Amino acid sequence: MKLYTYSIAPNPQRIELAIAEKQIEIARVQVDLKKGEQLSAAYKQKNPHCDVPMLELPDGTCISQVPAIASYLEETFPARPLFGSTAKQKAQVIMWEHLCAIDGLQAVGEVLRNTAKAMENRAMVGPHNYAQVPALAERGRARTRNFFADLDKRLQGSEYVAGDFFSMADITAWVTCNFAGWIKEFMPAECSALQAWHQRLALRPAFNSEQG
Amino acid sequence: MKLYTYSIAPNPQRIELAIAEKQIEIARVQVDLKKGEQLSAAYKQKNPHCDVPMLELPDGTCISQVPAIASYLEETFPARPLFGSTAKQKAQVIMWEHLCAIDGLQAVGEVLRNTAKAMENRAMVGPHNYAQVPALAERGRARTRNFFADLDKRLQGSEYVAGDFFSMADITAWVTCNFAGWIKEFMPAECSALQAWHQRLALRPAFNSEQG
Repeated sequence: MKLYTYSIAPNPQRIELAIAEKQIEIARVQVDLKKGEQLSAAYKQKNPHCDVPMLELPDGTCISQVPAIASYLEETFPARPLFGSTAKQKAQVIMWEHLCAIDGLQAVGEVLRNTAKAMENRAMVGPHNYAQVPALAERGRARTRNFFADLDKRLQGSEYVAGDFFSMADITAWVTCNFAGWIKEFMPAECSALQAWHQRLALRPAFNSEQG
Repeated sequence: MKLYTYSIAPNPQRIELAIAEKQIEIARVQVDLKKGEQLSAAYKQKNPHCDVPMLELPDGTCISQVPAIASYLEETFPARPLFGSTAKQKAQVIMWEHLCAIDGLQAVGEVLRNTAKAMENRAMVGPHNYAQVPALAERGRARTRNFFADLDKRLQGSEYVAGDFFSMADITAWVTCNFAGWIKEFMPAECSALQAWHQRLALRPAFNSEQG
């Protein structure tokens, strides 16, 4: 099994943290996004969506998209679960992980991709080129701030993002909070439940070693 | 168990079709999106993200977001599987379902939400108001066309979206193809693999009765 990744980017980080939490060993192949290696013909053959992370199974099957890779790792290495232990907990994790990805990670990405000089015509992940939309940068910033406030509200009544247990939803929320720093948005000081949760996570060995 | 839904909308349709394929019985509560009932205080209490579909479990737990509801139904009613039967197939379904949702359903929604008079200041699903961004309507149209072409390419080498078996990925792809009609975008005639797949799905009883 091989993970195609670009370790510093946010979506790869979600899988890197899952791997670290599960304490499993997987070989890495770095795909240099700065050099556009994800758009090469060789990589596109494996992954027509031209993104990372992507997991290549021993039989050559290629799995892209974080929720799909996370599901495969969970089913294959069930120890140290990241999706709870019941159908209900699993659904709660998928729900919150999805909300963090759409309302948080995608919002921050919207700002970055629609402003960065290096991403002209690359306003969206994937094989197709799309021009930047300046209005999205502004909207993404508003959405990021709403994400922080909404997550803080959630964490006022819940120890972890999906409930009273650590999960994949915490991983995506954490990566989003850190990714927001790339666009100079930071967890507001008044979001005390969010701040406390972030400090709790930082004590976990996987988070400590991955994020420095 | 109760499904809060607005049956004609695309995201509810994904779960309606899953329920029909699985041949299970679930009570429905209609949430009239045209009247803004999803934004009412009573509904927000159950689902802070203010969207449909949403599944309320007998213990009162509320699960929103299609991938989460689909996971819960699959775990609870494993007969007539919608996520294949192995860890690999499951990952392939989640991957393709996610791609169809992001690159297809979200693209069509982008056009609708950024042009419809009734959606002024409601350019995004959720509790927060965002102004329409006209440039997104244009981009969404380009993305929808790319979605059709990409899906056609995939189906040239695969009987169903996720592989050689029917799955949740077909459901989301089908809903997207029909939803595109709302913005007057249609599967191009030259996408013959896509057309053939759509005709095959239309023969399934669940698709037949749900979509008329």
